[in-house]
Amino acid sequence: MNKQYVLGIDIGGTNTVIGVVDARGNVMGVTSIKTQKQACFSDYIDDIYEESQKLIESLNVSDSIQGIGVGAPNANYYSGTIENAANLRWKGSLPLSQLLYDKFGLPVACTNDANAAAIGEMTYGAARGMKNFVMITLGTGLGSGIVANGQVLYGSDGFAGELGHIIVKRNNGRLCGCGRIGCLECYCSATGVARTAREFLDRDESPSMLRKIPVDEITSKDVYDAAVNGDSIAKEIFDYTGRILGEAFADFAVFSSPEAFIIFGGLAKAGNLLIEPIKEAMEKNILFLWRNKIKILRSELKDTDAAVLGASALGWEAGNQN
Amino acid sequence: MNKQYVLGIDIGGTNTVIGVVDARGNVMGVTSIKTQKQACFSDYIDDIYEESQKLIESLNVSDSIQGIGVGAPNANYYSGTIENAANLRWKGSLPLSQLLYDKFGLPVACTNDANAAAIGEMTYGAARGMKNFVMITLGTGLGSGIVANGQVLYGSDGFAGELGHIIVKRNNGRLCGCGRIGCLECYCSATGVARTAREFLDRDESPSMLRKIPVDEITSKDVYDAAVNGDSIAKEIFDYTGRILGEAFADFAVFSSPEAFIIFGGLAKAGNLLIEPIKEAMEKNILFLWRNKIKILRSELKDTDAAVLGASALGWEAGNQN
Repeated sequence: MNKQYVLGIDIGGTNTVIGVVDARGNVMGVTSIKTQKQACFSDYIDDIYEESQKLIESLNVSDSIQGIGVGAPNANYYSGTIENAANLRWKGSLPLSQLLYDKFGLPVACTNDANAAAIGEMTYGAARGMKNFVMITLGTGLGSGIVANGQVLYGSDGFAGELGHIIVKRNNGRLCGCGRIGCLECYCSATGVARTAREFLDRDESPSMLRKIPVDEITSKDVYDAAVNGDSIAKEIFDYTGRILGEAFADFAVFSSPEAFIIFGGLAKAGNLLIEPIKEAMEKNILFLWRNKIKILRSELKDTDAAVLGASALGWEAGNQN
Repeated sequence: MNKQYVLGIDIGGTNTVIGVVDARGNVMGVTSIKTQKQACFSDYIDDIYEESQKLIESLNVSDSIQGIGVGAPNANYYSGTIENAANLRWKGSLPLSQLLYDKFGLPVACTNDANAAAIGEMTYGAARGMKNFVMITLGTGLGSGIVANGQVLYGSDGFAGELGHIIVKRNNGRLCGCGRIGCLECYCSATGVARTAREFLDRDESPSMLRKIPVDEITSKDVYDAAVNGDSIAKEIFDYTGRILGEAFADFAVFSSPEAFIIFGGLAKAGNLLIEPIKEAMEKNILFLWRNKIKILRSELKDTDAAVLGASALGWEAGNQN
């Protein structure tokens, strides 16, 4: 019998979304559970199993699941474990793939959210047909998944591709959650945009729509709305963010010579407000070998499905190894 | 009949060195010709062929050559061409692999010097058994070869791994040969060390053995000799060079999560004078995931043979594809 579906599981800090996906990236059905309800990790795995079974039975695809792909914070492709994820209640090293395999009896592969997004984009999205590209997820932080020669780059320990932690300001940089100073994600992420807004508004008294919002409550969405309405400080914030990201992209190019950078996540919705300054700074700073050669693309995965699609794409890989 | 040898060809700006190498990395015999004698590139290929045949016949291994590996400036693994090499007299795109294949009738693979060094190190040297490492060649410039998952990273166009052109000083940086400002190789290379020497000697009048040498003639070897003899400015020059390189290594780590950085080339001979400050700066700047985990190693290939060994290692790959 043809096994034409995979199960994609996206583990977030709040919700765990489970979907059944076909080879073309159609989400046949989707369900979700609260991630942090259970004190014990294996009870949480039981919850995933029960909810998945309901979904699978409702779709009548019980014998057609080829494998399971999971995207989860700090998930390690090599070990199949979640390692000390800051936004989950269970600490230490969690045997995610093993426990799921024990319950489902299906091949399981897991990786972190950004690598899952890269695989999703390569399987169903903007990177179809590409063998070399870099996925950049611009959410609360900056995540990345690097694809080289058609494979996700995992490195010696499964943790390759933490491009949010390149240091872009060695002097007077912002303090990063990782404890160091000046990391890229302190500037180029939703949080980074909000920090830039506070800094820029604090510089002087020039007028801005953003001044109507208490300064500590300004989000990247507020900055976007103001920029779209012509606010010059808001536009300047996107120019600044895009410039730093474009300079970083020029440096990333010398590493893996990608065909494209694909941006994804909340901040990527800013579209040309962000992409134009990225392109300008990247071209201005890039080595002649790559001038006018590397594309900046937006993800082609539908927002609501993207995380599950990314995770599911890994399920094909898991299934094919068996 | 067992084909137990490969031909390694190292094309430099001055000399072209040709060697016959066995599977353990023993150089059975070596010869060389002047690179730039012929005005026509195909005449140069004929010279290589004739000199190689003499060597092969003298070793009595005519039927035992499995393939040919070539390391050359700007050589592209995908296309088998040399592309606009600054230090060669023939311009444009040179069909290196095709012409050699036509003459020898043997499989040929070529790549640039730094990638060849990486493959050499993986086949015969310090990287045996490693699947993820970064080779850094510290010569006139800074070259690099990145190995990920056991494969050299070539990227979309064959030019991946130009780490000498990461920008490390965006403000007041040094002018690089590539036309941009502040590239890593302006600081961390033999030329970079000489430039640093001129800058540091120009700062003030403090005593240094280096002041005996006309300032424009100081080489990195002079700085090394002075440092070994306790000269404090010379030591400071190595500390400065090592610090910039170590900061860059910390950034490179987040990209491919290597087991080791392997340094090679003239400047690598400075040993701990350079390695100690590299280690200190790398550990100070690295993301917690990799703290005290990444080795800094010196090449284990014998200096005189290294270039030919690196090139030859690619010959096995070429031979195995046929």
